[in-house]
Amino acid sequence: MKKLFNTVDNVVLDQVQGLIASRKDIKFNQHPMYIWHEESPNQVALVSGGASGHEPMHIGYVGKGMLTGAIPGEIFVRATPDQIYECANQVSHEQGVLFIVKNYIGDGMNFKLAVELLHSDGVKVGAILVDDDIAVSESLYTNGRRAVSGTVLVEKIVGAAAARGYSLEQCEELGRRVNNSCRSISVALSSCIVPAADQPSFELGKNEIEFGVGIHGEPGIERMEFTNANDLVDKMFVALKENTPYSRTLLCWDKEEGEWNDLESAINDFESDHEYIAIVNGLGNTQTSELYIAYKRLAENCEKENFKIVRNLVGEYCTALDMEGISITLLKADKEMIDLFDAPVNTAAMTW
Amino acid sequence: MKKLFNTVDNVVLDQVQGLIASRKDIKFNQHPMYIWHEESPNQVALVSGGASGHEPMHIGYVGKGMLTGAIPGEIFVRATPDQIYECANQVSHEQGVLFIVKNYIGDGMNFKLAVELLHSDGVKVGAILVDDDIAVSESLYTNGRRAVSGTVLVEKIVGAAAARGYSLEQCEELGRRVNNSCRSISVALSSCIVPAADQPSFELGKNEIEFGVGIHGEPGIERMEFTNANDLVDKMFVALKENTPYSRTLLCWDKEEGEWNDLESAINDFESDHEYIAIVNGLGNTQTSELYIAYKRLAENCEKENFKIVRNLVGEYCTALDMEGISITLLKADKEMIDLFDAPVNTAAMTW
Repeated sequence: MKKLFNTVDNVVLDQVQGLIASRKDIKFNQHPMYIWHEESPNQVALVSGGASGHEPMHIGYVGKGMLTGAIPGEIFVRATPDQIYECANQVSHEQGVLFIVKNYIGDGMNFKLAVELLHSDGVKVGAILVDDDIAVSESLYTNGRRAVSGTVLVEKIVGAAAARGYSLEQCEELGRRVNNSCRSISVALSSCIVPAADQPSFELGKNEIEFGVGIHGEPGIERMEFTNANDLVDKMFVALKENTPYSRTLLCWDKEEGEWNDLESAINDFESDHEYIAIVNGLGNTQTSELYIAYKRLAENCEKENFKIVRNLVGEYCTALDMEGISITLLKADKEMIDLFDAPVNTAAMTW
Repeated sequence: MKKLFNTVDNVVLDQVQGLIASRKDIKFNQHPMYIWHEESPNQVALVSGGASGHEPMHIGYVGKGMLTGAIPGEIFVRATPDQIYECANQVSHEQGVLFIVKNYIGDGMNFKLAVELLHSDGVKVGAILVDDDIAVSESLYTNGRRAVSGTVLVEKIVGAAAARGYSLEQCEELGRRVNNSCRSISVALSSCIVPAADQPSFELGKNEIEFGVGIHGEPGIERMEFTNANDLVDKMFVALKENTPYSRTLLCWDKEEGEWNDLESAINDFESDHEYIAIVNGLGNTQTSELYIAYKRLAENCEKENFKIVRNLVGEYCTALDMEGISITLLKADKEMIDLFDAPVNTAAMTW
């Protein structure tokens, strides 16, 4: 495999150590592996993690105003409960620790275990599940919807809130509100290649794309012919706009009772004359020019429907190794979210 | 060609319009095509441009603290003299306009023409040639060395100086000093595909790489076998470190006389116990993980030689369409350069 790797086994370790070498403000633990940033003890510690292969997510989001800690699993393999537990122990102070968890079965299981362990240690702990991907509501690896690039907005906005002194309960409420106001859809123009497998995860014909793909190459809604960027973005926009609001349950940790409960979560309807934050996210091998071409068409669609894009991100925020393709995320944002989005952040992948 | 394009003819226009749609602070002129940012009339206007296909360079660097204007040519085609002339007319005030020009024959010719036209209009105008690429000293498209990712540092540092009120002459002197203290080397793991050609610009064997490649796919020093990331970065570091200092001439515009003169430029020697700014730059289809793996090894090499990396950039700053590969840039930086590097910047591709 001709990639800038040393050995397939060392991809994750090498890249994390490279990130650490590039940023003096981030600390590193190798066994079990996690990274963290020293925050004020007076704020909620925010921790996320999961499979590697989605860089810069999550390790690129550790720093002032965003994540306190991140736990990289192996490539496309969930983080282990001891990684999660040890990282949380490292960063948690009196205000407690909040996990941001992408809604995949494996991630959910391991974060659940860590939450229970921390609770029995007397640590104040909470968890937010992210399920912004509207493509499918059940899939090989998920109960309910998957998480994709909307996770970045949850981490940015809740990260700013934690830095401002929001309590654990306030961070949880805000994070769930962001998640429920957020929709994403992804398309693949090519499969990714998992280093250990050294072959594409799926095959696409010369002119075929996978609409609604997941960030590990999970199947989407439809395999279709590619015509051009505008047609594809139009179709993605319609899918985002027309996703019918509905209620589903997301697991929630009851801190008082020390048990898990299903929390009824209503997806926030998308409306005209409202403000939105948009992401055009590259999935790996997508050129910056392609991202801006997609953004242009997204902006035109939003203008036509009077969805007011007040902030935007165009770049690689949540990838699927070397997959060609993009995800589009729209967050129906209230003033609090926009204000927190604008708050200072200083991480490897996002700084302002 | 399965890329997020609409038509091959519209790639540049669509992507520039996408960028403009994403940033309200940047203005756009279509005929001839250029973009600009309203600066204070009391500062030198900084303008760069050239072939498209190197995004985010240069359009992604227009904004507060960096470029005032940028002129995108067609893909791998130099900007035309009228584009350059009109853009400069749009942005120049009393302090004059300074061009940052990558040292390719075509770019040089067209910027030269524009400088002469502006001079005869009575506009105060200057130009800096960038030639940071140590790979080859003559090639198909160059007299002398080519320019690659070091251009980004010239634009950032001189951009900050202009915003602080440096005069045109001071900006020129600084820009030349940055260029002469800056070395880059690039490697390709795969060729890029020019959209209009729809086939790779060159062929590499399954395990072959091109060492010292240019950002349009110009040949390098050596076609070699790829072993692993560390070996490759070691070789790149040695090439950068051991490049013998020498003097060469770079064209310089004499504002008083209104004529071009060869300026003797001495390449600044690289020494231990000195401070450096480092870039690990992805050339297109290179994963963030690969960039961090390369950065790790670069940092190890620098530590061994006591090259003190005091600032670093790891990401895509100057690409070659969808080429797989990286460039590494080292700038031997003095306190003034570091201070200006740290100054606030707000552009699509660089913000802090």
